[in-house]
Amino acid sequence: MIVKNADWLHQQILEKESFLCVGLDSDMAKLPACVHNTPNPLVTFNKSIIDSTAPYCVAYKINTAFYESLGIMGFEALEQTIEYIPKTHLIIADAKRGDIGNTSLQYAKAFFETFECDGLTVAPYMGEDSLKPFLSYENKWTIILALTSNMGSQDFQMVESSQGKPLYKQVLETTKQWGTTDQLMYVVGATKPEYLSEIRAIVPDHFLLVPGVGAQGGSLEQVYKHGANNQVGLLVNSSRGIIFSSKENDYAEAAGQAAKVIQQSMKQLMS
Amino acid sequence: MIVKNADWLHQQILEKESFLCVGLDSDMAKLPACVHNTPNPLVTFNKSIIDSTAPYCVAYKINTAFYESLGIMGFEALEQTIEYIPKTHLIIADAKRGDIGNTSLQYAKAFFETFECDGLTVAPYMGEDSLKPFLSYENKWTIILALTSNMGSQDFQMVESSQGKPLYKQVLETTKQWGTTDQLMYVVGATKPEYLSEIRAIVPDHFLLVPGVGAQGGSLEQVYKHGANNQVGLLVNSSRGIIFSSKENDYAEAAGQAAKVIQQSMKQLMS
Repeated sequence: MIVKNADWLHQQILEKESFLCVGLDSDMAKLPACVHNTPNPLVTFNKSIIDSTAPYCVAYKINTAFYESLGIMGFEALEQTIEYIPKTHLIIADAKRGDIGNTSLQYAKAFFETFECDGLTVAPYMGEDSLKPFLSYENKWTIILALTSNMGSQDFQMVESSQGKPLYKQVLETTKQWGTTDQLMYVVGATKPEYLSEIRAIVPDHFLLVPGVGAQGGSLEQVYKHGANNQVGLLVNSSRGIIFSSKENDYAEAAGQAAKVIQQSMKQLMS
Repeated sequence: MIVKNADWLHQQILEKESFLCVGLDSDMAKLPACVHNTPNPLVTFNKSIIDSTAPYCVAYKINTAFYESLGIMGFEALEQTIEYIPKTHLIIADAKRGDIGNTSLQYAKAFFETFECDGLTVAPYMGEDSLKPFLSYENKWTIILALTSNMGSQDFQMVESSQGKPLYKQVLETTKQWGTTDQLMYVVGATKPEYLSEIRAIVPDHFLLVPGVGAQGGSLEQVYKHGANNQVGLLVNSSRGIIFSSKENDYAEAAGQAAKVIQQSMKQLMS
């Protein structure tokens, strides 16, 4: 069994000259017409996207909402998609789970055992005992929401505490004590690259999962400049900007091309 | 179609003399032996529990983690359980979802349309645009985590802001502006009944979903004393204390009895 720890991830990044994570936000309503007459359109779509993008990325992030909204058929697609992703890639379930301990343990089982993902995004609101069950899996990644890329991040994440720091910093400072840099990663939105330097001051060695490059408007150069550490330490996600590059029969080829363009930029930044 | 708004819920509570919500945290590992040789043990178990407890409760809360951990079979159980719950009861998916807008919309579709629940628990960390898609469903309940019943609620929910109030109060004050009392409810842990009076000062008219009575140690009397308003305004949940009352063949009967005991206490408090 491959232990997909931070060193392994760094090695993959060096070999592929890429820190790209492809987001499989495979919205049924946006799939190209040509996949709709197949038994499970999501699976057909995802498999083609994976085939065409795998050389250019090190991770896949599956946004579970787009699968859950389809009910049983969606979960079958989730299962088959995860099975299809090459073992050379990190498989992240972007599910943003988190509950009291005995319930978080069930979510950990769901994503780390039943669906065999390598990582899972989790929400910090319920605190330590809600995250510990995920962190009890040594060779799995617990990816905590710190500063997200949406407008609503202003509502609570940026609320200043009586100690003079915003909540997201408190989340970083507190939670980094709960696990190692081989199992703990943070979600940091790319639409706020100016905050990345401050975040790096708190968690210099952790991998950061950065969504929001592309459709959400973030700049890759800015993210790298402010967010990279000496192990790169970044997974930059792009979803819609890659997987929906074309809605025609050439959708997979177009996705591969879009991924390659990002990978080439990453290669340049890393050199 | 029944519109399950606050008035409807109040009416149900008066008719049944109960504000009990039965939590279907149906942990496969804890099910009685007699259900294990049926096609889907979770469904067999849940149906019997629903039959025996329905006269004593007004709502069912399905803890999705216990279904997700089983993969496809779990989602089949989730679907069949929801179909089986009488339309006279409020069906809550306790899933604690929340993500950027386009993703929350998919979660809303999943639970409000595909699985046809009446309410869904959501996490507030990502702010307004992460919750608006849920609130765009007028006749569905969006149930926001405010103060949870676990130890970890101390870590962030109780962090004091520079305005001198803990985060959970900020969450209440901010989010109550985003929806009506017919569609917005709050999760408030029963292990801290002393906080309920303060919460009532902020949201006097909202329904509160109160877990943590029973296995987690909360007191029903204290919850009612500090949390009830003139429409009762409470749904008190009990999960393990009811559904796992007995592990023998009489498990359903025992669950019905346990629910009845709580209902009788509620009747007394309400009179």
